Amino acid sequence: MVDDRLKVRSYPQRARYDLQFAAEVLDAGRIGHLALTRDGFPHLVPMMFVRVDRAVHVHCRAGTQLATDLAGGARVAFAVTIADGVVLANEVRFHSMNYRSLVVHGVAEEVTDEAAKRASFDALAEHVWPGRRGLSPATTEQLSTVALFAIPLVEFSGKQRTGPPLAGITPRPNVWTGHVDLHESPGAFHRAVDGADAPEPPWPF
Amino acid sequence: MVDDRLKVRSYPQRARYDLQFAAEVLDAGRIGHLALTRDGFPHLVPMMFVRVDRAVHVHCRAGTQLATDLAGGARVAFAVTIADGVVLANEVRFHSMNYRSLVVHGVAEEVTDEAAKRASFDALAEHVWPGRRGLSPATTEQLSTVALFAIPLVEFSGKQRTGPPLAGITPRPNVWTGHVDLHESPGAFHRAVDGADAPEPPWPF
Repeated sequence: MVDDRLKVRSYPQRARYDLQFAAEVLDAGRIGHLALTRDGFPHLVPMMFVRVDRAVHVHCRAGTQLATDLAGGARVAFAVTIADGVVLANEVRFHSMNYRSLVVHGVAEEVTDEAAKRASFDALAEHVWPGRRGLSPATTEQLSTVALFAIPLVEFSGKQRTGPPLAGITPRPNVWTGHVDLHESPGAFHRAVDGADAPEPPWPF
Repeated sequence: MVDDRLKVRSYPQRARYDLQFAAEVLDAGRIGHLALTRDGFPHLVPMMFVRVDRAVHVHCRAGTQLATDLAGGARVAFAVTIADGVVLANEVRFHSMNYRSLVVHGVAEEVTDEAAKRASFDALAEHVWPGRRGLSPATTEQLSTVALFAIPLVEFSGKQRTGPPLAGITPRPNVWTGHVDLHESPGAFHRAVDGADAPEPPWPF
């Protein structure tokens, strides 16, 4: 039973309301967008994030307006979208994208336990690049400068488009129609000037 | 002079307030996120978009709640973020992403002129894949089923992170530190079953 506010209205046949899909999108996504209402205006912030069990973890500097809003119980919406492909139709209006998206609604809960915070930042480093957890764990003082929040993975709705374009009615013998998959791939590796003379890590995605 | 509501508060040295940067992010981005407040709750929708001159164009089915909200003058925030790279540090807490992001605030104006709508959908197809404009322009009836909105590129703020990780204090002789560029690359081309026997278009990005 999906709450009316969460229901996908446009192309409802593309809706995905299962936790497995939600986890898949969050685990594959790079950057999310957090929306809340501040002084009556929608406020939207791109943020790094990581899924930890049944929650989305986001962080910001302690004491900022954002931290205050979140700690104060502001309603949020948090979205992650992955562009999976490009859809090339034989009519302009049917050009589209294939994608997976997830929008999570709710109220964030601040995570203050030190061990939980360290585990979350470990998970975030691991999300950025598998294998990076555990490098010089943050000290108590360092942790205190960062506010960490968990948005429960309870109210959410996903959406996915896959496959070919909607069929146009106009034949176009010279125009290729179909869909093209998109992938993220690595470009150059730039070693930091103060970086160790260690081998480049293999592309893990 | 940047309005306080648009000011980048976190890492302000990464802020970009120029139109050139805004256009660059919009022209390179794939999917944006539109935020507005509905019934007191933040509402967040992933959307395709295209920049047309000094505006961001988004569309939805005519007569939907979203179309009604936008036509009714709802304040919106619209964000596009591009993940440019992965930042691998020698401490967990300095792992990060390189990115370009843009958040546009304002009130959308409905575009109702037919020629302007056709030009916008041409631009959108071209944004999806250069060279696709002009394929079977939509009829008057088809255009009438879609509501098109322009968010003026007036109130916006951008942000960009580039380069190496912040320097950790702990030497890590065996750990590669630096940043890795990310690129979008094409995977398989899937010709539609009813698609013409035309050559695959070359990757244009």
